[in-house]
Amino acid sequence: MERIVIAFGGNALLRSGDEATYDIQLKRATDAFEKLTNVIQNNEVVISHGNGPQVGDILLQNETSKDITPSLPLHSCGAMSQGLIGEILLNAYDSIRSKMGFEKNASVIVTRTLVDKNDPAFTNPSKPIGPFYKKEEAEELARANGWTVKEENGKGYRRLVASPKPLEVLERPAIISLLMSGILPIASGGGGIPVVKSGVGYSGTDAVIDKDLASSFLAITLKAQRFVILTDVENVILGYGTGNEKRLYRISAGELDKYYEDGYFPKGSMGPKVKAVVDFVKKTGGHASIGSLDHAEDVVSEKSGTQIFPDYS
Amino acid sequence: MERIVIAFGGNALLRSGDEATYDIQLKRATDAFEKLTNVIQNNEVVISHGNGPQVGDILLQNETSKDITPSLPLHSCGAMSQGLIGEILLNAYDSIRSKMGFEKNASVIVTRTLVDKNDPAFTNPSKPIGPFYKKEEAEELARANGWTVKEENGKGYRRLVASPKPLEVLERPAIISLLMSGILPIASGGGGIPVVKSGVGYSGTDAVIDKDLASSFLAITLKAQRFVILTDVENVILGYGTGNEKRLYRISAGELDKYYEDGYFPKGSMGPKVKAVVDFVKKTGGHASIGSLDHAEDVVSEKSGTQIFPDYS
Repeated sequence: MERIVIAFGGNALLRSGDEATYDIQLKRATDAFEKLTNVIQNNEVVISHGNGPQVGDILLQNETSKDITPSLPLHSCGAMSQGLIGEILLNAYDSIRSKMGFEKNASVIVTRTLVDKNDPAFTNPSKPIGPFYKKEEAEELARANGWTVKEENGKGYRRLVASPKPLEVLERPAIISLLMSGILPIASGGGGIPVVKSGVGYSGTDAVIDKDLASSFLAITLKAQRFVILTDVENVILGYGTGNEKRLYRISAGELDKYYEDGYFPKGSMGPKVKAVVDFVKKTGGHASIGSLDHAEDVVSEKSGTQIFPDYS
Repeated sequence: MERIVIAFGGNALLRSGDEATYDIQLKRATDAFEKLTNVIQNNEVVISHGNGPQVGDILLQNETSKDITPSLPLHSCGAMSQGLIGEILLNAYDSIRSKMGFEKNASVIVTRTLVDKNDPAFTNPSKPIGPFYKKEEAEELARANGWTVKEENGKGYRRLVASPKPLEVLERPAIISLLMSGILPIASGGGGIPVVKSGVGYSGTDAVIDKDLASSFLAITLKAQRFVILTDVENVILGYGTGNEKRLYRISAGELDKYYEDGYFPKGSMGPKVKAVVDFVKKTGGHASIGSLDHAEDVVSEKSGTQIFPDYS
């Protein structure tokens, strides 16, 4: 039995072409948990997940209604997405639990992730979020709300927010408590709700913590032996799309890190995942995996996916 | 040290005239927790809360944007409100914890409440929710979605949903786990996300579980010694608004129940609170209180509020 943090990719809730309805996401999540039946029964598992499309829709709803209901900050939208996705994952999990006849309960913890208000990311917002705006509209919003906005590939303007580094999972005690009671915690949804230290306590802040990095950080902070990212590709691939591709099966964190530093992975997709597993393996000496959600059990049992080990092994 | 379930009234988040912004709700919630500093440090406390105005706004946002984002069911909106309010309560609690210098962590559990799909409430929806519509619009929505709609005091038409009885708090194991670890659970927000048994597992269902009844049920299911409803009045009052008022200080559940059955309390406001405390005291032999959030410690220590005891005491 290992303690394993499993990061669900976006495809655990939505596949290409899916509309983000409750029913479709419930079906996708049920399929995802079905692939993990044995892993969950035989290990101390913690599940984390993304929230990109869901928080995008919530922001859009918020934006569309701002003249008739108070507009909520981005971190509140993130908190809402944890509730929304949380219910879906709980119902999905329980249907698999009931079908397969096992007892282990799951529970969703509304999770805040502490970031540093002096993180350089705040002076250089880089993560596009929410709807596209026309130029004038974007400039007006930027003036009114202090937003940074940027034109994106001819599709219009979007708000950019900071993507600061995670420093602490504030709900760690609750997650540990659930693990100790044999419950499956679902935590750090969407990278966690970003908060900064305020005079007393914590304040929500408008940022997006990279979900892969946040999951890796969660795994480190929980002293997990294993960190697994389940996504829509079978393996980490070098030279993807170049015609000269090399599929990685087993690699040391040091070697993978070199490829990362040399710019082998695209920034928006495989890059953060590679960074996240390298971080986990280097900091804990544990073992990490990146592979396909559809072959989740095989990724965990090392029959599929890319396995990343410490340098000495 | 007692196990106490405390139900926050709506005034723990919003007071009359407040706009439902993040900042105002954070301030209100911080004030609420400040009143409970000693109670929380010296007891095993569980907090539950309502979500009326918040879920109303989420529904309205959902409704306004239905042509550009997939419309989410009511139970998903309830789940979102648990995340939204959960973050506010966590940040508020931590600011008081930090100010007063105590260690106890709080944690928000996304909570589902099981109801019976054959509950008679489903054939007689009675709880108005969401925005007001014009007659034609309401009739069209009713046809398209199978809604029940009803005219309300000349203000327009609203959707009516069922208000079924709570049968089980599905996240009970997680709540117990947190209590055992000395953590303050925040649970059953808005009465819990209503789910019914499906073929396998549970499905979200569009209903609103009365929050006072759900909190009472939570207290019963957690075998709490004490159930406290904090609201915006000092006492339960007989003949409220008649000029011939009688303020209740100490009363047995049996006697209070007689007043309830004789129609002494208004349906929408004090009625459900009285029913909730009577239920708790009758089923557990415990002690319940209804009083003002502003005098929370005094309500708990029986110096304020209405105290409800078992019949034999």
